[in-house]
Amino acid sequence: MSDTVAVRGFVATEPRHLVTEAGLPITSFRLVTTRRRYNRQASTWEDGGHNWYTVSAFRKLALGAARSIAKGDPVLVAGRIHLREWTGDKQGVTVEIEADSIGHDLAWGRSRFTKSVGGPAGDEATAPPDALSGAAP
Amino acid sequence: MSDTVAVRGFVATEPRHLVTEAGLPITSFRLVTTRRRYNRQASTWEDGGHNWYTVSAFRKLALGAARSIAKGDPVLVAGRIHLREWTGDKQGVTVEIEADSIGHDLAWGRSRFTKSVGGPAGDEATAPPDALSGAAP
Amino acid sequence: MSDTVAVRGFVATEPRHLVTEAGLPITSFRLVTTRRRYNRQASTWEDGGHNWYTVSAFRKLALGAARSIAKGDPVLVAGRIHLREWTGDKQGVTVEIEADSIGHDLAWGRSRFTKSVGGPAGDEATAPPDALSGAAP
Amino acid sequence: MSDTVAVRGFVATEPRHLVTEAGLPITSFRLVTTRRRYNRQASTWEDGGHNWYTVSAFRKLALGAARSIAKGDPVLVAGRIHLREWTGDKQGVTVEIEADSIGHDLAWGRSRFTKSVGGPAGDEATAPPDALSGAAP
Repeated sequence: MSDTVAVRGFVATEPRHLVTEAGLPITSFRLVTTRRRYNRQASTWEDGGHNWYTVSAFRKLALGAARSIAKGDPVLVAGRIHLREWTGDKQGVTVEIEADSIGHDLAWGRSRFTKSVGGPAGDEATAPPDALSGAAP
Repeated sequence: MSDTVAVRGFVATEPRHLVTEAGLPITSFRLVTTRRRYNRQASTWEDGGHNWYTVSAFRKLALGAARSIAKGDPVLVAGRIHLREWTGDKQGVTVEIEADSIGHDLAWGRSRFTKSVGGPAGDEATAPPDALSGAAP
Repeated sequence: MSDTVAVRGFVATEPRHLVTEAGLPITSFRLVTTRRRYNRQASTWEDGGHNWYTVSAFRKLALGAARSIAKGDPVLVAGRIHLREWTGDKQGVTVEIEADSIGHDLAWGRSRFTKSVGGPAGDEATAPPDALSGAAP
Repeated sequence: MSDTVAVRGFVATEPRHLVTEAGLPITSFRLVTTRRRYNRQASTWEDGGHNWYTVSAFRKLALGAARSIAKGDPVLVAGRIHLREWTGDKQGVTVEIEADSIGHDLAWGRSRFTKSVGGPAGDEATAPPDALSGAAP
């Protein structure tokens, strides 16, 4: 509930990947989504312009994203909104989504997935594989 | 806002794919997620049991999911909650997520994505590729 | 991202309020929401049936809800989905929303709000009032 | 799924209410929320700074909000993110939430609610009161 969001859109720049001196992997890219607007005359929804975000991923997700995502890919991103205000010659705000999860949007195509040896750890993990050991109710 | 949800979890059953007589492709599978619970003594979050959902996908997303997803895969699902009440010998409720989008969770590995010829249409599409023709601001 | 949801609906039962032996205040009620369904022939969204949830609130939120909410009230609820499976003579699942926040939906009327002495504490709080001491940027 | 978000925060400016020449009621205010950040050393979540939004409400919700909300109130807001880019002497982006619903956050106090004669209409309504005529299952 702390400003969480899930958005569908397109990767608008080649992802940039770097590792900080402290050893933290970071991947970031620009994402564009399409707003929907209700047309009261026609009683239909229509496109209402675009939102541009900066998406940032860290640790395991940064590695997975860097190895998988290219400019133009349709993706689903879930994360938390981070509005960074900045000043200098100018001033403004950068709209960032700190991603908890990113995946290719399968409404647009198909993906071949390979699980890494060792998944995300700690607060990054949300569902351990051992939940699958029993029969699904 | 109509009962929309985004969940991360694991595919718990082999996806079932079928096409109705009317020509509608449908793919469905069971999904298990891990709830998080706040431990006030330790001031930390910990696992709080599992939620089991039935995920249903239609049209293009049904095709992409059927070609891409297998039991055990970590996925991110965005959609709308549909609680179906049923009666008969017994009575109960089925908890379904009608998916708008599904993707492999890249915090757990890597994916190779291939875009289909012809993306989703109408209300299925949320961001047209032509948004990418200009330079990203 | 752990199965968080925000729903708009109507309070369908008089809220029940109790305090456990350990001193934990709990308020719960049934909530009904209206699903939306896309009509492809008409290209419009229409009502698609109802979802019934059990909403549970704890601590300060339990107190505020018990003092404010009555059957029939339109509300906005944000929280986490908790699917409780149960067995016995029968077996089934209860669909619960553990609420982080509840408010009267101001699209349906007006409210007069009185702040309590002492707000929620710890993980219940998401924005301290001192953020308001400066001028709004 | 089109950039929907639910946030809890505090009203940071007195709401401004106006009616356009075309007769459309609009209410807007600044909202501040507190981000949460995971502290890996301590394994706890802590405050991670603030997000500032402009919240806009239209029609019935604009009327209800104007009659109910004051600077300093804790609120829950559900809506859609609208990033407006602007240029001029400077250039920047305004981060707006077009609200579908706003309510006082009952974790912080109590509210007395009065339903209007005539609720929201069309796409504004998400759950008709007649769903309550039967017994709650």
